[in-house]
Amino acid sequence: MQNKLGVVVIGVNGAVSSTLIAGARLMAAGHVPRLGMLTEPGENPAPGEQVTDFLSFPKVEELVFGGWDLAFKNVYEAARHHNVLPAAQLDKIKGELEAMKPWPAVFSGEYAENCKGENVVTAKDFRGELDHIIGCIEKFKKDHGLDRVVMVNLASTERWMELADVHKTLSAFEKGLDANDPNISPAMRYFYVANKLGCPYVNFAPSLTNVPALEEMANELGNPYAGMDGKTGQTLLKTALAAMFKVRNIKVEGWYSVNFLGNNDGLVLDSPSSNKTKVLSKAAVLDSIVGYRVENHQVHIHYYKPRGDAKEAWDNIDMVGFGGVPMQMKINFLCQDSVLAAPLVIDLVRLLDVAKRKGEKGIQRQLSLYFKSPYTSPGEQAQHNLFDQEALLLDWAKKHADK
Amino acid sequence: MQNKLGVVVIGVNGAVSSTLIAGARLMAAGHVPRLGMLTEPGENPAPGEQVTDFLSFPKVEELVFGGWDLAFKNVYEAARHHNVLPAAQLDKIKGELEAMKPWPAVFSGEYAENCKGENVVTAKDFRGELDHIIGCIEKFKKDHGLDRVVMVNLASTERWMELADVHKTLSAFEKGLDANDPNISPAMRYFYVANKLGCPYVNFAPSLTNVPALEEMANELGNPYAGMDGKTGQTLLKTALAAMFKVRNIKVEGWYSVNFLGNNDGLVLDSPSSNKTKVLSKAAVLDSIVGYRVENHQVHIHYYKPRGDAKEAWDNIDMVGFGGVPMQMKINFLCQDSVLAAPLVIDLVRLLDVAKRKGEKGIQRQLSLYFKSPYTSPGEQAQHNLFDQEALLLDWAKKHADK
Amino acid sequence: MQNKLGVVVIGVNGAVSSTLIAGARLMAAGHVPRLGMLTEPGENPAPGEQVTDFLSFPKVEELVFGGWDLAFKNVYEAARHHNVLPAAQLDKIKGELEAMKPWPAVFSGEYAENCKGENVVTAKDFRGELDHIIGCIEKFKKDHGLDRVVMVNLASTERWMELADVHKTLSAFEKGLDANDPNISPAMRYFYVANKLGCPYVNFAPSLTNVPALEEMANELGNPYAGMDGKTGQTLLKTALAAMFKVRNIKVEGWYSVNFLGNNDGLVLDSPSSNKTKVLSKAAVLDSIVGYRVENHQVHIHYYKPRGDAKEAWDNIDMVGFGGVPMQMKINFLCQDSVLAAPLVIDLVRLLDVAKRKGEKGIQRQLSLYFKSPYTSPGEQAQHNLFDQEALLLDWAKKHADK
Amino acid sequence: MQNKLGVVVIGVNGAVSSTLIAGARLMAAGHVPRLGMLTEPGENPAPGEQVTDFLSFPKVEELVFGGWDLAFKNVYEAARHHNVLPAAQLDKIKGELEAMKPWPAVFSGEYAENCKGENVVTAKDFRGELDHIIGCIEKFKKDHGLDRVVMVNLASTERWMELADVHKTLSAFEKGLDANDPNISPAMRYFYVANKLGCPYVNFAPSLTNVPALEEMANELGNPYAGMDGKTGQTLLKTALAAMFKVRNIKVEGWYSVNFLGNNDGLVLDSPSSNKTKVLSKAAVLDSIVGYRVENHQVHIHYYKPRGDAKEAWDNIDMVGFGGVPMQMKINFLCQDSVLAAPLVIDLVRLLDVAKRKGEKGIQRQLSLYFKSPYTSPGEQAQHNLFDQEALLLDWAKKHADK
Repeated sequence: MQNKLGVVVIGVNGAVSSTLIAGARLMAAGHVPRLGMLTEPGENPAPGEQVTDFLSFPKVEELVFGGWDLAFKNVYEAARHHNVLPAAQLDKIKGELEAMKPWPAVFSGEYAENCKGENVVTAKDFRGELDHIIGCIEKFKKDHGLDRVVMVNLASTERWMELADVHKTLSAFEKGLDANDPNISPAMRYFYVANKLGCPYVNFAPSLTNVPALEEMANELGNPYAGMDGKTGQTLLKTALAAMFKVRNIKVEGWYSVNFLGNNDGLVLDSPSSNKTKVLSKAAVLDSIVGYRVENHQVHIHYYKPRGDAKEAWDNIDMVGFGGVPMQMKINFLCQDSVLAAPLVIDLVRLLDVAKRKGEKGIQRQLSLYFKSPYTSPGEQAQHNLFDQEALLLDWAKKHADK
Repeated sequence: MQNKLGVVVIGVNGAVSSTLIAGARLMAAGHVPRLGMLTEPGENPAPGEQVTDFLSFPKVEELVFGGWDLAFKNVYEAARHHNVLPAAQLDKIKGELEAMKPWPAVFSGEYAENCKGENVVTAKDFRGELDHIIGCIEKFKKDHGLDRVVMVNLASTERWMELADVHKTLSAFEKGLDANDPNISPAMRYFYVANKLGCPYVNFAPSLTNVPALEEMANELGNPYAGMDGKTGQTLLKTALAAMFKVRNIKVEGWYSVNFLGNNDGLVLDSPSSNKTKVLSKAAVLDSIVGYRVENHQVHIHYYKPRGDAKEAWDNIDMVGFGGVPMQMKINFLCQDSVLAAPLVIDLVRLLDVAKRKGEKGIQRQLSLYFKSPYTSPGEQAQHNLFDQEALLLDWAKKHADK
Repeated sequence: MQNKLGVVVIGVNGAVSSTLIAGARLMAAGHVPRLGMLTEPGENPAPGEQVTDFLSFPKVEELVFGGWDLAFKNVYEAARHHNVLPAAQLDKIKGELEAMKPWPAVFSGEYAENCKGENVVTAKDFRGELDHIIGCIEKFKKDHGLDRVVMVNLASTERWMELADVHKTLSAFEKGLDANDPNISPAMRYFYVANKLGCPYVNFAPSLTNVPALEEMANELGNPYAGMDGKTGQTLLKTALAAMFKVRNIKVEGWYSVNFLGNNDGLVLDSPSSNKTKVLSKAAVLDSIVGYRVENHQVHIHYYKPRGDAKEAWDNIDMVGFGGVPMQMKINFLCQDSVLAAPLVIDLVRLLDVAKRKGEKGIQRQLSLYFKSPYTSPGEQAQHNLFDQEALLLDWAKKHADK
Repeated sequence: MQNKLGVVVIGVNGAVSSTLIAGARLMAAGHVPRLGMLTEPGENPAPGEQVTDFLSFPKVEELVFGGWDLAFKNVYEAARHHNVLPAAQLDKIKGELEAMKPWPAVFSGEYAENCKGENVVTAKDFRGELDHIIGCIEKFKKDHGLDRVVMVNLASTERWMELADVHKTLSAFEKGLDANDPNISPAMRYFYVANKLGCPYVNFAPSLTNVPALEEMANELGNPYAGMDGKTGQTLLKTALAAMFKVRNIKVEGWYSVNFLGNNDGLVLDSPSSNKTKVLSKAAVLDSIVGYRVENHQVHIHYYKPRGDAKEAWDNIDMVGFGGVPMQMKINFLCQDSVLAAPLVIDLVRLLDVAKRKGEKGIQRQLSLYFKSPYTSPGEQAQHNLFDQEALLLDWAKKHADK
């Protein structure tokens, strides 16, 4: 088996994606430290058992990136625009980033209100779009001599939608494709192709893709996948702190969360329908960890321009302790959303590649550590506690140990 | 076996102790919710496996309290002074709290500079003091018909001290007692008696008591014990957040911690020698969880009167993520130190009682969850990661399951 | 001239009002310190010239309170419900607070969506309501032997409304009263009576009352009045900090403000139409002080139950300094809204009483210090800078000096 | 009169100084906005009367800089090291900054413990050092064709010292110079030369220079001067907020201030003797504004490396309002110390130049707006209230109006 691994990204010129690609190349060239990933034996190996003690992964140098996008001429231009990594760093690898030009994207304005861009695929119907996606991937494999490719959804959040009949079985879904059913979102069309080509698939966005039809397809065709919605700033913190409150049996009476950010993601979330998708995806998390319904739990997201891609999350927690005494905690997290997200994608790509190699298929629950809303089958409960999620991943790594 | 369990407290009129006793009695009477303990099946059982699924404990109603102190006429007066639980609550159980009068305490001004009080035992030498302590416990057992007693050290932090020869073997220690060696602190004299009488012992303070001589004695006589320094506000948070940073491989570059509080504990810690004991006890924790030395780690503690027993902890964390990008987190914890501490003592008392019943002896490492500086034998590494500590306790509970 | 001064309050059982009355009586009885007022020579007289150096005011002991409300049987019950001053304090003056029973209020559900209560005046039309209000005041004066009364609007915020023709002249307004024109809000009907009876009037709420018709009436009848919307927590802070940024010529690039509170006021503001009134009333303030439009200025208000009357305001300010370098400031204000508001009402009552005595009429601009949106005549600019407002008041006091 | 104005800086390669010079040149070249100064009609003129409405100043383009320092080869190297303005900006004016090389400095290791550098003047005694300083200034004037020069002290804080006899009269001071009296610090020797040459003098550092001997000299020779210790981050904020609390008669019960920073200034302040100078200079400010002694007022300064020149100030204020109710405010100021300081120096230089022109001499009290500890004559009280200070300056500007 060759070690080169292809990564095709939906939304390749977004903030997370351009940070991810530039960061990977900067690490490969030794310009930045290898931080943020569990699949990379870092400069500072953490104590205790690690995933890297059990499994082997392609090196950062061996990841090859490509992808679709509506906007920006190439990854360099995108990365400069998003302004996450410093210009002085990006300029060190300017040439190779400029060479990465996005493929025309499948897009529907109905699903992503505030998105703009010209680089849209022209096809006469859904089946034509699928052929375009397939064509892009096959050419990418051939051009780079790749035998394996993982697909990652990093496109902007699509609007919230209900499960429709067309999503419920694979045969209904196939008919829907033939009929260009508007309930089949662009994100679903990409996932369909991933299954078809046997590319492991990650949905890092909060858009709806884990529908029964596509779960059925992945299981039938033996394709592993994981999602959804990367667990980065505030939810990461929430699932760690909630675990702490549980360990001390301190009752959480209220949790008031505010986020403000000034990037495109913030703008998209300012559209009420996308925001609903996001907020719902945050809601169940807390209750599930502490074991009861936190009655006063609020999450607000606002677009605030001066921040750019830097995001500020503010949490206030009201709690009740021994003797019924109230206490408060306030947290101010000055983070870079894309910096938190990018390394998770590298971990996910590598771990899904291993999963495929080990013969796993369907939802990969051991990857719940990476998601705000880990995928489950209908009726199943997701694990949200950050440290229980960590244990799940480690147990899985041990069970499938290479070493 | 009867279920009534005696608890004798060194420093019974301190803020933690009076909160603990009043809180236990208020819970017994149904005036406040049962929160803060893992050994109490709460109103809101947490998800997943719990200690209470495996082990049986005396009820809160079955805990009987007594203890030594220098100051305050009784527990009611102490609790009103410390002003942790509201007066309106304390008044509901005023009679029983007034009935709890402190026994004269063994004390040395040399060990605790800012402590005051009159109720000091008068004995001609150390051996006389030991007889006094034994007498108090025996009378307490007889008065209340108790067959088991756990001893808890909740006295003010003693000054920092080096290990001396007298601490190294039990025989040297016995000779030191005969010679009234000033290196044998009051806290050690109490622990000696606990071992002698077979009372499980908890050192909830950061004072030095786990010396080789007394570890030897506990192992020889089959007595279990645990310590030291209850993990409450800022360190609790630190060991949860550090675990989070580890899970995401985010490098901690600096951690700046400030505490200010206005209770007696704050005043004692304002004495540089006691403060040293405390700050050292916080230092190793972070490095041990993340797996490398955090170069810029500072902990400052200040006495600030307007706060009373309420404590404010402030943390600033500088971190470096993917691509070498810096991020910051700031946390403001408005807590009541005694409210965080008291329920841990109840857990410890119950778990040590179980340990004794199960034939355990010496250091009880499964209780590291409760301490800033979990006791270890010389050369052994302590576990500081809050969630690894939780797993240790749960594994132990399963192994010794009653149910 | 007798020194007893009557104060009639619309919304006498609200949080601010019950705090105000209980606080005044507790000060009179010596139970609490005399804080929060500029018209009260405090224990700690501030340096420099003070209003009290120039003007004489009735003592706190000489203020006599009465008022209208929909809810609560008496002021004691209201104050206990709002839970601002401690029960132990309120109980010291329980009798006199219980004796203060609200008069039936003029109310319209259309203007205040989330308000509830039974104690509504029954009158067949607007003129009947006015007679009721007049009757209440006259009986109050007679019962207490008062020769002067000031009216204060502390009712819940009414919904936002546009200026209509009926508001534009006094004669149109009189006709509107005859016709029960729904554009004449309850708050306007009270103000009309204040003018008619020659009672100085304060609008401490953000509801619309300073309409041309009523300004005309106040000027014709020689009645002084002031408003609107008490400047308490976040806006107070904003007008002080903006003055600081101006003094340093630091450019404010964004100001993100969040408030959360759990009292009735929070609930009312959760109704979008009332919230609009409030947020507009905050908007112009900042720009007017710094002298340019702050493009990214946001104010959000949320109802969050665990806080009760305590309010938490959070501000983030993005600024740009010398050399174009960005800086940030974050402020967390844990305040009690009613505690900040109540003493301002006492100041306003006293200062309007002086104004009347000095022959002033119409809008009292020297009182802008107390308001988020100081009243102006059409076309006039309000002064928002806290320290320029302070100078205005002091100049006025000097000009009208008694001493 | 020519408009070119010379500025000679003691500590020309420090963080404030290199920021100041680079910033001035960047403004002159149009690369950065003109912010932070009151003497520069900005893009956004503030409302109300401004200093620039009354007085004329040399343009930024007309300021010519020179100075002494121990370290760094030139201002470019210093500015890169201090890392306040971005490298990309500094590179735009690299040539002219590199051309500014420091003159050898008068230095005493005894006065500034943590300072290092090689570029020390070699002279056989104090009088020889004075000649060196005079020579530097005269050459500077000749080289640049200047008729006026202002001297600015921006050197590191000298250790705290008591007033000695040698400081009390000019004749004692002159004798001390002859005798190389170690009580005459380097900072005083520079100020002596400023007076001698008739250069207006600013002490922006907290070092002791306003001794009676030198005040006497300045008055005799007609030289104006001002100091001391620039009012930047936390004290700026403190004097604005204290003014706000005064306006509302809210009692400040405690104020707990922490600063952490990682620049050379932080390192110097970590030396206990320098820190004492600084902390004393902060202490009186608050009490003087509110008019009573704030009993619980603490200021802590810590060196914390990850912050570099960026400084984080944290304040917690405990206050008591109406009815004796406690409230809290917490402020987190993420500032750049040098960015706050640099424009004040430009203002001071220009305003002292005007003062000289207008015939003012001795302490310039109208400049108290710029200092933590405004200079006063013995027995005189300083004005600390930020807004009263602003009024002082404006009144002075009006009185001396050019326009």
